[in-house]
Amino acid sequence: MSLHHQTMAAVTPDGVTVKGLDLVRDLVGSVSFTDMLHLEIAAELPTEGARTALDAVLVALTEHGMTATALAARLTHLGAPGALQGAVAAGLLGAGDHFLGALDGAARLLQEWPADAEPGAHAEQLVARARAERTRLPGLGHPVHTDGDPRTARLFAVADRAGLDGTARDRFLLLQRYAEQATGRRLPVNVDGAAAVLLTGIGIPWQVCRGIALVARSAGLVGHLWDEYRSPAAQAMLDAADAAAPYTAPAASAEVSA
Amino acid sequence: MSLHHQTMAAVTPDGVTVKGLDLVRDLVGSVSFTDMLHLEIAAELPTEGARTALDAVLVALTEHGMTATALAARLTHLGAPGALQGAVAAGLLGAGDHFLGALDGAARLLQEWPADAEPGAHAEQLVARARAERTRLPGLGHPVHTDGDPRTARLFAVADRAGLDGTARDRFLLLQRYAEQATGRRLPVNVDGAAAVLLTGIGIPWQVCRGIALVARSAGLVGHLWDEYRSPAAQAMLDAADAAAPYTAPAASAEVSA
Amino acid sequence: MSLHHQTMAAVTPDGVTVKGLDLVRDLVGSVSFTDMLHLEIAAELPTEGARTALDAVLVALTEHGMTATALAARLTHLGAPGALQGAVAAGLLGAGDHFLGALDGAARLLQEWPADAEPGAHAEQLVARARAERTRLPGLGHPVHTDGDPRTARLFAVADRAGLDGTARDRFLLLQRYAEQATGRRLPVNVDGAAAVLLTGIGIPWQVCRGIALVARSAGLVGHLWDEYRSPAAQAMLDAADAAAPYTAPAASAEVSA
Amino acid sequence: MSLHHQTMAAVTPDGVTVKGLDLVRDLVGSVSFTDMLHLEIAAELPTEGARTALDAVLVALTEHGMTATALAARLTHLGAPGALQGAVAAGLLGAGDHFLGALDGAARLLQEWPADAEPGAHAEQLVARARAERTRLPGLGHPVHTDGDPRTARLFAVADRAGLDGTARDRFLLLQRYAEQATGRRLPVNVDGAAAVLLTGIGIPWQVCRGIALVARSAGLVGHLWDEYRSPAAQAMLDAADAAAPYTAPAASAEVSA
Repeated sequence: MSLHHQTMAAVTPDGVTVKGLDLVRDLVGSVSFTDMLHLEIAAELPTEGARTALDAVLVALTEHGMTATALAARLTHLGAPGALQGAVAAGLLGAGDHFLGALDGAARLLQEWPADAEPGAHAEQLVARARAERTRLPGLGHPVHTDGDPRTARLFAVADRAGLDGTARDRFLLLQRYAEQATGRRLPVNVDGAAAVLLTGIGIPWQVCRGIALVARSAGLVGHLWDEYRSPAAQAMLDAADAAAPYTAPAASAEVSA
Repeated sequence: MSLHHQTMAAVTPDGVTVKGLDLVRDLVGSVSFTDMLHLEIAAELPTEGARTALDAVLVALTEHGMTATALAARLTHLGAPGALQGAVAAGLLGAGDHFLGALDGAARLLQEWPADAEPGAHAEQLVARARAERTRLPGLGHPVHTDGDPRTARLFAVADRAGLDGTARDRFLLLQRYAEQATGRRLPVNVDGAAAVLLTGIGIPWQVCRGIALVARSAGLVGHLWDEYRSPAAQAMLDAADAAAPYTAPAASAEVSA
Repeated sequence: MSLHHQTMAAVTPDGVTVKGLDLVRDLVGSVSFTDMLHLEIAAELPTEGARTALDAVLVALTEHGMTATALAARLTHLGAPGALQGAVAAGLLGAGDHFLGALDGAARLLQEWPADAEPGAHAEQLVARARAERTRLPGLGHPVHTDGDPRTARLFAVADRAGLDGTARDRFLLLQRYAEQATGRRLPVNVDGAAAVLLTGIGIPWQVCRGIALVARSAGLVGHLWDEYRSPAAQAMLDAADAAAPYTAPAASAEVSA
Repeated sequence: MSLHHQTMAAVTPDGVTVKGLDLVRDLVGSVSFTDMLHLEIAAELPTEGARTALDAVLVALTEHGMTATALAARLTHLGAPGALQGAVAAGLLGAGDHFLGALDGAARLLQEWPADAEPGAHAEQLVARARAERTRLPGLGHPVHTDGDPRTARLFAVADRAGLDGTARDRFLLLQRYAEQATGRRLPVNVDGAAAVLLTGIGIPWQVCRGIALVARSAGLVGHLWDEYRSPAAQAMLDAADAAAPYTAPAASAEVSA
């Protein structure tokens, strides 16, 4: 994948050019939206294998039920129903260090892996450093899917089918093995880790991997907001959340959300 | 209040000038933050009465417990604890048509009230139009404070003490009377309506009244986020909200947030 | 397209179900991201024709050069480079009434078009009402592409190829004809209008059409932000914008951005 | 300042209680908005000295001309004029690591300063570590105000007048001296550093110092947006910025923003 700089887009009365391709003649009706996203980042259309891998990552990251970010988007819609862009933006703002941030971290770790290092020694060193600094290795472990995130095996199978080079996966599995040995705990590769392996495999820079997740989540948030339009649920969820808030209310007063 | 256009701010190596005043010599250490907010909008410092009224409105709008926007901010912090600005922004995004938007609407109604109209006739006409269009009159009614929002009486008392002209209040109370007559229901002036009366009284344009509320809420959101830092509550509230979501889960499966 | 309500998603230790389909077995590696977006909104996978049309709309809306929203995202990145989600969110927040909002408006107009009305009479009435209220008809006219938005013809050709029913297009072209007659000006169907025709043709509700545009723009914004990473341009653009600000600076002082 | 946890707020049909105080009886019309902000964070009203210092910091951070965040807010308003909350939120999102983030960093450095360390030795060590890690010491240096940020001297004078303990300032000035010795460059304490000294002096935790800045900036952003309402400038600034974008447009085509 060539990442040389190009004109983002040139707009004239006659047309629009994106990364050197004519929007109307070359893109609209000719390529998929996934191709277009690849073009925006990589300045070229994806190979068939890269498209398959990118589609699989996007699909895997779109929807995960009533997450914190989906609820934040719905609550925002409750107060500002006329500004859908605000509700989607509010939902995206929760995609940070603790949610989806592991995707960047895992991809960075893979993309900065020294080519000439003995893989086992480097993995061991990464584990040792994380333990010394008491930080988590990104992309490993999951609070719910403790026996292995079901999305991971699927994403790895897609990577094989797409013909991706296996280096990134081998390194990440090595890291997992050393981490499990050092901690004595099961630390399955989670969906962030698997997505990092695939995105690294198709050449997406780690700095922008979170961006891929944001595009995926934006689709999921739009789904939640359309659901909220038809079946308003946010107020009931707010009431339940408020009742669960660990506040010590003054005696003889009921707390209400208003 | 003069609303003539002035230089917003000029920055030079020697200093900063805001609306014609020198930031260091005239403002920092000399005026309150409320004065500064007034200067930003009105291009002049407030009179003592205007400062009193503006402070009262800001204080009244800062905090209202676990609102939808406070919860949205806390949920955003859960995923992105390193970007406080994102959590505050997410909280502000819910201040739209249904939440605080009535402030703009009520202020507009007051500021576009024709000076030469017979007050009762105009109020009657506004009520009739709202009923014909099946819309609510902004600033009237409250789901919880049905016997009268306690903040309203207080804000009106402050307005008296601050020496504000009573025209805006008289008109709004007239509107309330006609609305209650027409609907046969109690429709107390709520905090949005009272704030609109005071802000109109000190000359804040209706287009920017929501902005006053946003400044007030930003302080409340920072309070909630610092509370969340010390006593994390968002995850428990998310779990409670998720359990209350009206989804029909497939048989034999527990829904969890993850 | 059936829009019946379904479980958004159920998450269990064994897997994730989205709109009744198993994420791992049925979706990841099996469908495209465009299919997944369709599933999120319509609760079913698209037909081949619907996928083609949805892809074309998404591709057409992804990128349009240095728009206000692209610049807002880049400027946000300048101050907060560690929070990519904030820069994308800032960019999306400008997609409102004046930018992309016409998409909702045009789609609503088409989806609320009375089935039993004489088309010409209804179009004439819409034009008359817009002129009486001094509002613009959404989806018509463009400040740059005055001779016809090149994306429109392409989108209509894609709609034909995808086998979409032509009713929505015929109605919109009728509206255009009456609007041009009434104003005596060229009012080409712009990309928002064309997108509204296609989205209506595949059954996307008008309330969520802006959401489709937000997903598309999120991809474009990620492209701009990765461009900004490699070739920082925002500071130079800020300096140029600041120099163009119509402020009357005090004599003998240079205004600088700092 | 006691930072013990208290009920944020309890809302009942009879009233609202904030941090143990009755909103109507104790706060609205009785305290300033600055007091209310202090109450939200510290769970008690400020002393007169703390109020003076907090007001000075807020006023100093409200406005700094056409910054990146002010322009981002104006550009957002251009596309979504009906959602003021979105434009303010977009402006706040740029307050991150590079803009205002130094405030958190400088406050943290002061608040984690070991009480029993020899001040000079600790300052020397902080400078050495920053140089080894090639990072900047937060709160020192300014691109425009190279001879000393004029706001700093003023804030320090206000701190004296307010009777604040001088420990934090002494430590920061020591840090400055060692940093200037080590680099051979002038590194004046900038407004972020001075604000960190005052906020530390009144007991605001470093984790929430950015929050103080966000409240201040929200007022400045509302000022810019009201300015934009009356004197639209964003489109002209966008055109100037676009012309300055370092793109290589295809020959024979003018780039326009549209």
